[in-house]
Amino acid sequence: MSWNSFGRVLRFSTWGESHGPAIGALVEGCPAGIALSESDIQPFLDRRRPGQSRFTTMRREPDAVRIVAGVANGRTTGAPIALVIDNVDQRSKDYAEVAKAYRPGHADYVYDAKYGFRDWRGGGRSSARETAARVAAGAVARRLIPEVSIRAYVVELGGDPVSGFDADQIDANPFFCPDADAAERWAARLDEARKAGDSLGAVVECAVDGAKLPVSAVFAAMMSINAVKGVEIAAPGRVRIAFKPTSSILTPVSTIDRDGNETEIVTRGRHDPCVGIRGAPVAEAMMALVLADEALQSRASRGSEG
Amino acid sequence: MSWNSFGRVLRFSTWGESHGPAIGALVEGCPAGIALSESDIQPFLDRRRPGQSRFTTMRREPDAVRIVAGVANGRTTGAPIALVIDNVDQRSKDYAEVAKAYRPGHADYVYDAKYGFRDWRGGGRSSARETAARVAAGAVARRLIPEVSIRAYVVELGGDPVSGFDADQIDANPFFCPDADAAERWAARLDEARKAGDSLGAVVECAVDGAKLPVSAVFAAMMSINAVKGVEIAAPGRVRIAFKPTSSILTPVSTIDRDGNETEIVTRGRHDPCVGIRGAPVAEAMMALVLADEALQSRASRGSEG
Amino acid sequence: MSWNSFGRVLRFSTWGESHGPAIGALVEGCPAGIALSESDIQPFLDRRRPGQSRFTTMRREPDAVRIVAGVANGRTTGAPIALVIDNVDQRSKDYAEVAKAYRPGHADYVYDAKYGFRDWRGGGRSSARETAARVAAGAVARRLIPEVSIRAYVVELGGDPVSGFDADQIDANPFFCPDADAAERWAARLDEARKAGDSLGAVVECAVDGAKLPVSAVFAAMMSINAVKGVEIAAPGRVRIAFKPTSSILTPVSTIDRDGNETEIVTRGRHDPCVGIRGAPVAEAMMALVLADEALQSRASRGSEG
Amino acid sequence: MSWNSFGRVLRFSTWGESHGPAIGALVEGCPAGIALSESDIQPFLDRRRPGQSRFTTMRREPDAVRIVAGVANGRTTGAPIALVIDNVDQRSKDYAEVAKAYRPGHADYVYDAKYGFRDWRGGGRSSARETAARVAAGAVARRLIPEVSIRAYVVELGGDPVSGFDADQIDANPFFCPDADAAERWAARLDEARKAGDSLGAVVECAVDGAKLPVSAVFAAMMSINAVKGVEIAAPGRVRIAFKPTSSILTPVSTIDRDGNETEIVTRGRHDPCVGIRGAPVAEAMMALVLADEALQSRASRGSEG
Repeated sequence: MSWNSFGRVLRFSTWGESHGPAIGALVEGCPAGIALSESDIQPFLDRRRPGQSRFTTMRREPDAVRIVAGVANGRTTGAPIALVIDNVDQRSKDYAEVAKAYRPGHADYVYDAKYGFRDWRGGGRSSARETAARVAAGAVARRLIPEVSIRAYVVELGGDPVSGFDADQIDANPFFCPDADAAERWAARLDEARKAGDSLGAVVECAVDGAKLPVSAVFAAMMSINAVKGVEIAAPGRVRIAFKPTSSILTPVSTIDRDGNETEIVTRGRHDPCVGIRGAPVAEAMMALVLADEALQSRASRGSEG
Repeated sequence: MSWNSFGRVLRFSTWGESHGPAIGALVEGCPAGIALSESDIQPFLDRRRPGQSRFTTMRREPDAVRIVAGVANGRTTGAPIALVIDNVDQRSKDYAEVAKAYRPGHADYVYDAKYGFRDWRGGGRSSARETAARVAAGAVARRLIPEVSIRAYVVELGGDPVSGFDADQIDANPFFCPDADAAERWAARLDEARKAGDSLGAVVECAVDGAKLPVSAVFAAMMSINAVKGVEIAAPGRVRIAFKPTSSILTPVSTIDRDGNETEIVTRGRHDPCVGIRGAPVAEAMMALVLADEALQSRASRGSEG
Repeated sequence: MSWNSFGRVLRFSTWGESHGPAIGALVEGCPAGIALSESDIQPFLDRRRPGQSRFTTMRREPDAVRIVAGVANGRTTGAPIALVIDNVDQRSKDYAEVAKAYRPGHADYVYDAKYGFRDWRGGGRSSARETAARVAAGAVARRLIPEVSIRAYVVELGGDPVSGFDADQIDANPFFCPDADAAERWAARLDEARKAGDSLGAVVECAVDGAKLPVSAVFAAMMSINAVKGVEIAAPGRVRIAFKPTSSILTPVSTIDRDGNETEIVTRGRHDPCVGIRGAPVAEAMMALVLADEALQSRASRGSEG
Repeated sequence: MSWNSFGRVLRFSTWGESHGPAIGALVEGCPAGIALSESDIQPFLDRRRPGQSRFTTMRREPDAVRIVAGVANGRTTGAPIALVIDNVDQRSKDYAEVAKAYRPGHADYVYDAKYGFRDWRGGGRSSARETAARVAAGAVARRLIPEVSIRAYVVELGGDPVSGFDADQIDANPFFCPDADAAERWAARLDEARKAGDSLGAVVECAVDGAKLPVSAVFAAMMSINAVKGVEIAAPGRVRIAFKPTSSILTPVSTIDRDGNETEIVTRGRHDPCVGIRGAPVAEAMMALVLADEALQSRASRGSEG
């Protein structure tokens, strides 16, 4: 119930299931008069989009965003901004097996225990797909804080850390990796993992320049990203976020079915061998949303006499 | 900024402009496992739908609702429920004249003063069209409190009150009027008003059976309906809501343009001669949303030891 | 649960029971650097204070406010502001009879039904005494919107309306009445009512100059005041609030006890014969709190590019 | 502005400055009918209380809590619960030097930059003293989830981790350390650090049994504790919280004054050489508050038909 919505002044909610007709975000509290069009949002979705290299899920989604409310004549009106991304390549049949038992490390069991009910297709809301809506909302947030620079990149993969930092490298490899040598090593490791039906964890660093970090909100926002297991302040202005290995793997693992009987499961859906890679643009989006909300709150807290 | 969102546990937000591609509502905090389909919602939209008699706006909208998220296999999943209603018959050209000056009694001037910016087509968010999204959300809320009866009807129109109450009459005339004689008088008065390019106010009563009224929330909810000017507790369990006459009338009225020059305006858009009539289903929806939120809150507030 | 807290950016909560050691308010979100001391708050409490004329309850409370947090060196620090008012003249023994049965028109039955539990002394939270904490918080809010004028006065008492308006009269009589003739008539009527052990209703008008009214928030705020039964917009910038007659009267009335047996009750506690009179300063306080919150929100909603 | 208040259904706010007359907490949304007295709260405050060993600040505070609202006849009434802890041993004069320059690692500079204003005494709100109010509120929260076990202990101090776990040891040493050998080593290290005017970091682990962790809320809550730099999920049901070394040390360090001139500062106030130690009871309190809020929310989210 609690963490589909974020923010106090700039608030956003995401909606939509991995295997439903569409996903989306509703952004409320955005000031009026901000220039905004789909072209401000699409590039961020494109960076996150699956199927761009052999290292991410093979699901093919154009992830084309539409602004259906809150913008008129190219500017925000102050009304809620509704963003919609149609699902194109949902394949529920891949999940037939999953319907029979709980996937370890997934939210399957938690949902069933909490709601007495389970939408087993693609993890429902807990799918990585939900993060596309966050990235779209984050792009709106960035328009409110153009003076702030936010940059996330992967600093460790499968336990192997970067040893250098070259900002120009970040977009030159499929890992958002600021170190060309590490990127080469990681490609080999991921190919190996993929062949073995295995998956790897990663650490994303998000660096902010031009704004103070409201740390409680930042930690809550980062922790709300699927598969995140830890968050730390690396130095003033930098946050590190640890992603666990993807839980959906092709290796058969022990589990229980709904009646509590022991069984084995193989998760055949299409998945990222390292979900942390695509965590970088998601972390940027969450940071943008938190910082934009904080910026609007700060305006409110400045006294008229102060 | 503040009143597009309502509720604490069951929360809903509406979005969409009268002349955009669609309007909708996002309902969060709905418990999982509730049977829900479009056919639970559509009848309430049909009651509110314009163009059903000569006494409401001639705008023709099928108001067909789609549930695009939050429901799987006919039951709510606990995830946000996204409801979409496509706009079909928007005609922005009717509003060309309106772009030039402020319509008295409309939100035009307020928006411009607040946001330095105005979406002049159909009143943007402040249009009566926005209430369709509330009615859709209200239908979801009703599913959570099936034990509660909520019934709204018009008890006064153009200063002429009902003198009797017959529940069977309410849906037998185009006024949601519980008094057949009054309904006949109102038809004549409205025809007159319509010919004169004039409009009338109305008082809606909303009667609740089976739940206590959380009065602050009820008053806020009712007052958030466009054109409402007053709310009072008529007796325990009954609330009266006063609607002002529709501000869009064909009689030329004095106003100012954006530069402050005096001018005249005729609002040619298609409008209800008495917006209070369609206020009845909207009042029911807002009541359902408030009562369902209160019911969920009450469950939370019952102590485990108490 | 829901209406002890108000506001989104400037938030306040009240606490304390009529017959506990103290009552108070916590004001959060107040900008730093605002000059604030007890002397900014005390005059507003003094206007609301009981026991100042024969027309209000005989309870004697100095209502001296202390700021115990959030202010340093005479200025707000941005931290929560804690306001405390000690209860001095609580007399629980007056209420012994009340413990045995429900007082009609009081919250006694509602509390019992909602919580399975009742703090019968002085109505607990639902006592008019709770409004002192609101008045204190309202005085803080006024410091944030010095450019706005807020003035509440009684325009009708026991069904007898004022016929003129003289601002200078408002503080010249015990009724906050802007019409000297009406004030005289009301004095006679209230003496009569008091002798008969009866009580009267009233209508308070609250006039605002220098700010737009956020009507949903205003209606919720006014309706949250104990004994209010209706709210209406009188004209842009003026709100009318209807108070029911005080429910605690000396005339024996029929009721039931906790076992459902019919009985009679006389409420011997000290009470206002017309609670609406002291509603005027409370309405002013609620208006100040809503408008200050709105002002802070508006600062947030002004776009950096707009 | 944002993180003095927590929770959605069970909400709490803390107030009070380290060197003001009192600190306190306001707990809202607590169900009625829960047995609650000061003796349910005091033991938790006693565990956190400073001055109990040579390893914590020498400030002497009885930390006696009073419940001043929300409880009648030994049970919660459903109204806001106001908790007050008087400050007894505040010594502002210790901080005279601090008024002249910013303490590195403290919130001094941040406050000044954010509010243009600084309450330099004892760090104002950012003092570890504020955590007493959290511990008091946490004790109330525990009453709502008696079925849940929450236990926090220190697993690393100054980079030296525990190597065993004996639950009985936790309260047998001044470090909440579950390993007797480690406790001995830590005593020596802290004595050394204290003599050198230095301070040490620590890692607290909080283990929960009997409830699922709502991780976003847990991370936000933990990160809101002063001096926390990182949070991670150690294993389902266990969270690790990293505390930085206390910033107030007796070694002179470089800083700037308000005019930007370079200078040196020695922080002479009374401080813990390792603030992480007392972080253990605070982490427990925050966990209790988050879990109780989640429990109340869960009750709300269970469907009536589900």
